[in-house]
Amino acid sequence: MTHTFNLVPNQQITPERFFSAVNSYQLTEAIKSAIELEIFTAITEGNTTSETISKRCQATERGVRILCDFLTIHGFLTKQGAAYSLPEDSALFLDRHSPAYVGSAIEFLLTPRLLECHAHLTEAVRRGGTALGEGMLDPESPDWVKYALAMMPMARRPAEIIATELRKDSEAHKVLDIAASHGMFGILVAKQNPAAHIYASDWKNVLKVAQKNADAMGVGDRYHLIPGSAFETEFGNGYDLALVTNILHGFDAPTCTKLMRKVSAALNPGGRAAIAEYVPNSDRVSPATAAAFSLTMLAATPSGDAYTYAELEGISKAAGFVRVDLSSVELGRNRLVIAYR
Amino acid sequence: MTHTFNLVPNQQITPERFFSAVNSYQLTEAIKSAIELEIFTAITEGNTTSETISKRCQATERGVRILCDFLTIHGFLTKQGAAYSLPEDSALFLDRHSPAYVGSAIEFLLTPRLLECHAHLTEAVRRGGTALGEGMLDPESPDWVKYALAMMPMARRPAEIIATELRKDSEAHKVLDIAASHGMFGILVAKQNPAAHIYASDWKNVLKVAQKNADAMGVGDRYHLIPGSAFETEFGNGYDLALVTNILHGFDAPTCTKLMRKVSAALNPGGRAAIAEYVPNSDRVSPATAAAFSLTMLAATPSGDAYTYAELEGISKAAGFVRVDLSSVELGRNRLVIAYR
Repeated sequence: MTHTFNLVPNQQITPERFFSAVNSYQLTEAIKSAIELEIFTAITEGNTTSETISKRCQATERGVRILCDFLTIHGFLTKQGAAYSLPEDSALFLDRHSPAYVGSAIEFLLTPRLLECHAHLTEAVRRGGTALGEGMLDPESPDWVKYALAMMPMARRPAEIIATELRKDSEAHKVLDIAASHGMFGILVAKQNPAAHIYASDWKNVLKVAQKNADAMGVGDRYHLIPGSAFETEFGNGYDLALVTNILHGFDAPTCTKLMRKVSAALNPGGRAAIAEYVPNSDRVSPATAAAFSLTMLAATPSGDAYTYAELEGISKAAGFVRVDLSSVELGRNRLVIAYR
Repeated sequence: MTHTFNLVPNQQITPERFFSAVNSYQLTEAIKSAIELEIFTAITEGNTTSETISKRCQATERGVRILCDFLTIHGFLTKQGAAYSLPEDSALFLDRHSPAYVGSAIEFLLTPRLLECHAHLTEAVRRGGTALGEGMLDPESPDWVKYALAMMPMARRPAEIIATELRKDSEAHKVLDIAASHGMFGILVAKQNPAAHIYASDWKNVLKVAQKNADAMGVGDRYHLIPGSAFETEFGNGYDLALVTNILHGFDAPTCTKLMRKVSAALNPGGRAAIAEYVPNSDRVSPATAAAFSLTMLAATPSGDAYTYAELEGISKAAGFVRVDLSSVELGRNRLVIAYR
């Protein structure tokens, strides 16, 4: 058997991309361990060798050395001789003392149910949706409390940007916040406009987190709760603005249309729905983060997806909105789509 | 609370590296699903749209579309309009019809025990070795049969290169192959020298695979089995050459020294031990693949590691070898170290 198979470097084609992909779960485990053990925090505190880090983190020198070398290989640390240090992004986001710390995100992103959903990806591809019942969409799932607690730090800045952007058009006084979660999107509107009242829709267990945040941020007296499924609860009416953030991706287009029709009915004429979503381009493979989010929905929901702008526009118009705009405001991973009733 | 936290692109520091690392397990799942569903093979056969691929792979169009887009984002496919195609490396290594197919490697690399070891990485860092008993080193573990079957295609070419390299010095007639596994390393020596007899040491269940391969490759009559632990079985003596491939990394240095002393005792004066290993540089963070292998050993063995050349030289000399060379021969991920008795 003679063939061109080749594991030799410096020649053109190797299977390294494949092996690297197969083993990429190790990087998930390594970054999780580093957060759990507070490796980045320990280094910021001045423990720079595997020996001193291991004492601070209550681990073995050997284990810390191997983990830190792995983190160095993947760019999360730098190494000079035996001393590790933090590149700028690790220092800003992964040191627990940093106000920009995002390490808590693993509490949701690596929740066992989500990992289990992905462990059944082949079956999900076969059936076109999660292999595990409702996936992440079970009513009152404790995972959405985890989400609210874990993702709050990451939501504040985009929520602030959205609130500021929406005020440029007109002030909203009665605001419906669907899938409120940590509450940041509604709370930031209330912070910017002292006349605004927020009506937050989410599961009852999740709304406890939102109310707590609203209280802590001084808008608790203008914060009202609508506990239960957004598909079933009574929103009321007379809203100027509805915040529809990170919920449509969980459902198929007809279900999204149904929800948006209910939102439309709750809005005053001329009212707006602000949709914040992962919005891939029409090629569905760019930008990478937004486009890749489809896979999460395939693994973890019965029929969710990351929708293109054209699809979100179609859903909104089918639900009775007369005009739909894709905002140019920069939100990082998400885009802002505004639908006008 | 005002801080520099920032999820906005086009500015300098973002937490994207972190989020990408946390989610990198999804790439493992995606490539596994693609191999299991034979996506790459289906495309080579002329099924280029998610619709036609889904029929060939017995999956839903929606599931295939989302998976193929994800594979495109990660460079395993290219996409033009609705048509997917294979880049050169995917075509060569991931199409089941290709003689260079390596997809079978997932059968070992993603074996449940290995994943479970990594799922306990934090505990492994704390204790300095696998959290799960002997990790992957349980006697007669069926995972090493999986290894022998799954990794055989990847071993043939390096085995051929090593056999050719070793002949430049002298022909070996009696060859000890420790951790023989699929048998490739010994079998290729026997293929190149019709006078060579190979004595293969490995677990009994694993040696069945090696013997079958030796038979299939026409050297079965010169292939002899030494079943059991390499630390306990009787090797005999009079060997010109010992092949010590991919075994030392499983153990700590004193245990490696003990094994190498046993190898030395089995060799004739002037005999050689050929060690093929992941050999990181003394910085322990390069080259990436060899250096990263330390983490696998931390997670999956009580005290294994990827050893630098200086460490392998130290182990060999402590075991009674008089000269140790690092060969410049190119083996891809591994290096060849030759120890002379």
